[in-house]
This record gives sequence, structure tokens and C-alpha cells, in this order.
Amino acid sequence: MARAPQAHYVFVGDTARLPYGSKSRRTIARYAAQSARFLVEEQGADYLVIACNTASALALDDIKEAVSSSVSVLGVIEPGAAAARRSSRTGDVLVMATDATVQSHAYATACAAKGLRALEKACPLLVPLVEEGWTAHQVTAEVIRIYLDELVAEAAAKGLNPDTLVLGCTHYPLIKPLIEAAVPAGMKIIDSAESVADKLVMYLCNDLGAPPATAPTDPQLRFFATDSVEKFERLGSRFLGRPVGPVELLDLGG
Amino acid sequence: MARAPQAHYVFVGDTARLPYGSKSRRTIARYAAQSARFLVEEQGADYLVIACNTASALALDDIKEAVSSSVSVLGVIEPGAAAARRSSRTGDVLVMATDATVQSHAYATACAAKGLRALEKACPLLVPLVEEGWTAHQVTAEVIRIYLDELVAEAAAKGLNPDTLVLGCTHYPLIKPLIEAAVPAGMKIIDSAESVADKLVMYLCNDLGAPPATAPTDPQLRFFATDSVEKFERLGSRFLGRPVGPVELLDLGG
Repeated sequence: MARAPQAHYVFVGDTARLPYGSKSRRTIARYAAQSARFLVEEQGADYLVIACNTASALALDDIKEAVSSSVSVLGVIEPGAAAARRSSRTGDVLVMATDATVQSHAYATACAAKGLRALEKACPLLVPLVEEGWTAHQVTAEVIRIYLDELVAEAAAKGLNPDTLVLGCTHYPLIKPLIEAAVPAGMKIIDSAESVADKLVMYLCNDLGAPPATAPTDPQLRFFATDSVEKFERLGSRFLGRPVGPVELLDLGG
Repeated sequence: MARAPQAHYVFVGDTARLPYGSKSRRTIARYAAQSARFLVEEQGADYLVIACNTASALALDDIKEAVSSSVSVLGVIEPGAAAARRSSRTGDVLVMATDATVQSHAYATACAAKGLRALEKACPLLVPLVEEGWTAHQVTAEVIRIYLDELVAEAAAKGLNPDTLVLGCTHYPLIKPLIEAAVPAGMKIIDSAESVADKLVMYLCNDLGAPPATAPTDPQLRFFATDSVEKFERLGSRFLGRPVGPVELLDLGG
């Protein structure tokens, strides 16, 4: 929004069926395709950003199949791997993600295609801790330390020399300060959201031209949630860093 | 199963849409009614045990409306409150539960009807900790201590003198040893599952007569899950304390 304020943004949060990260590929693909069809067929989206690592890792092809081929579909795995490639000197990277994302090995595959070796670790407690609002809590710091110690020890046992950590879940940037405090000295941390925004702005500029010199400061925004709109307004505002609302209730039939 | 081995049991786990405890009444009621209709209309159930505190607290009436009036529907809130009534000398009880159950105040209402004062506390991290398998982990002990300290302090501030704690979520009995170690000395802990089993056996004996003297030792069991059957077999076995399977995949349309 900061970099392409001329675009219109429509956000769907499938809150009635979250979290995706503990579910199977089949179920995640069905849910993600329903949201994608809503955004394209009913909201007229020209670009789809799959702003969820789990859905990007397990359902990108299903989402592309579910919508018109004229729609550009952008996941978060490939830009995250590209940012890791730019960051890493040793060629070895660590990935923290949900259970489903790790089991798909989407990051390992995307990193391998760029000549990187990636070691992935499922961190299922981090999403609930962020949802609970414990983003600066000592329990969260302790859980991060436990997960990272296991991940770093496993990397050492495999003879890897990682210098980069990819945050493979959209919830993790909210606890980035705690993660920064826990990683070994000198390790760089990649938040794929930045890379995704780069790529989306490139698409927009190619298709629509550069943003107008006097771009609107307040882009047009619309929010949908499949469960309680009040809860989404509360949590969404914490994620976005500005008030979210009004939120509209969306029935995807599930 | 131990006490009514002559009955046939069919279990539905709506794993594609779990957890219910963080969702709205409207969504929980819709999901629970779909499972109830499946059990009654397609599996021929005569009794429904709503073995989930959140669904019992928020959707018991919706479930009763969704199925034939000849079906006995048994939630876990009322038996839990009855057990608290039998346990408490002071008349003041504490309840740990999910966010949705606490917001419904179902336990406070059921306890008040029995002359008890109940103070409820949402403990949203406990379900993810159990699902992660950290049932004897020091992080789980620390989270329990934080929740209980807040609950006990709030009770003291309100002038309550609680002597009984109700475990208001089906996941919590798996961490009962950690909770026992954290409660003030002398506090009794209520697991409503025991009370529910009492009540169900009473129904069954009234309707079907006493169990046969040579009851089958292995009751007839059938399991359905709406997401990964492999994951359900793994986690379900941990909950039941014996192998669960085979599990059948169920599509409730969501």
C-alpha cells in the first residue's frame, strides 16, 4: 500500500477455517481456491497475492487452476527463496514455518533451484502465541529459543553452515525482535513480505505504468472475513499497524 | 466405552475446521449442526454426546434443533457444573476454558443455577500446547502458572474463596498433572468427562436395561475426520489411550 497507493486492495481472511498450517494439502487447496474465486469472480481482482506461506506452499497450482489465466498469481515462497539467495554467502539457509509448509518442502525445493541448501523446521506454537498477543512475552522468547536450538543443532549435525533465516509464515514478522535476539550472531533474517511487495510493484508498473506523481495517500481498501468481523478488526489492526475496518462478513459456504 | 461396552460408538472429529474455541457462535453452531446431522441422519445415532466444551457452550440449542426430537443430546457444561456443585464447600469455583466458551459464560450460568459463583478464564494457548505434544513440558507448566496466577488473583480481588477448578475444555485432561501441580493446595479439579459418562450410562440403562453380564470387551467403534485421517489416527490415539483406526474421511461440505 505504501509503494502502490494507486491500486485497489481487497483482502480475504478465511478466519472461520483458520489455521491452515496444521491441515492437509487437500483441505488447504479447497479452501484457498474458494477464496481465490471470490476475489477474482466477485471482486474483479487482476492480481492475486497469496499472502499466506501455507497456501502458497501447498495450493499455488490449485489456485492458478481455479481462476482465469489472465490473473497474475503471486505466492510468497519464491520471493522468499530469492531474498535468501541474495542474502546468503554460505549457500545454507534455515526456514521456520508451519507444519504443513515444512511437510510440503516448498522452501527446500525453491531454494535448491537457486543452488541453496535449506533446512526447514515446523514451529506450530508461534502462530497461537502471536494470536494470543504474547508478541513480547518471555514464554514466546523461550519457545523461539527451543525451536531455534533444535534447528541450529540439526544444521550442525548435517554439516551445514547457515547464515540466513527465512521467516516462512506471515505471523512471524510480529515476533521478529524476539527472533533477532535468539539467532546466532551475524545471521540475517528474511521476511518474504518485502520481496513479495517488490515483485507486485514490478508487475503493477509494467501493466499500469508508474504511480502518478500525486498518488493518493490513502489507497482504496476492502476487507472480508469468514468469521467474526469484530475479532478481525482487532487482530487485523495489530498486523497492519493501522485501523482495519469496516470488515464485511463473507460466506464461502464452509 | 469401559462402562457401556454394549453400545456402538461413532466419533466425528471436524479436524478440517478446528479449533472451534477461537471462533464465533454463529460459525460454531453451523459446523456443529452439520456434524450432528451426519451422526443422526447417516449413522443412525440415538444419543449425541457433544464432547467439546465450546460446541456445548455455544451450540447446544442449535444442535437440538438440527436433529430429530427423539435423539437425546448431552452436552458437557451441565454435567461439569453438577460435579462442581458436589465438590465445592465454599460455593466458589474457577473455570479454565477456550475463549469462545468463556465469552458465552455458559459455565457461569450453569453454576449460578446451582447456587455456585464461577469465575472463568480463557486459556487459548493450552490447546496448541497439547496438540504440539508438549503435555509434560516446562513451557506448558509456565503457561499454566501464568493463567492460574491471573485467575486466582482475580478471584481474590472479587472476594471469592474458590476450592474447585473445572477443566472446561476436552484437551485439558491431558495436562491434568501439570495443572494439579500448579493449583493452590487443597483445590479439587473437575474433569467433566467423568460426569458426562455417568449421565450417558444412566440414559443407556434406562432405555436399554443394564449391560449384559458378559458384555463385549471391545465395543463397536467407528471414527470419522474431516481432514487428514493419518493425523487423526496419531493424535486420537494419544487422547483415547489406545490405537484409533481405521479413520474414515468425511466431507461435510466446508
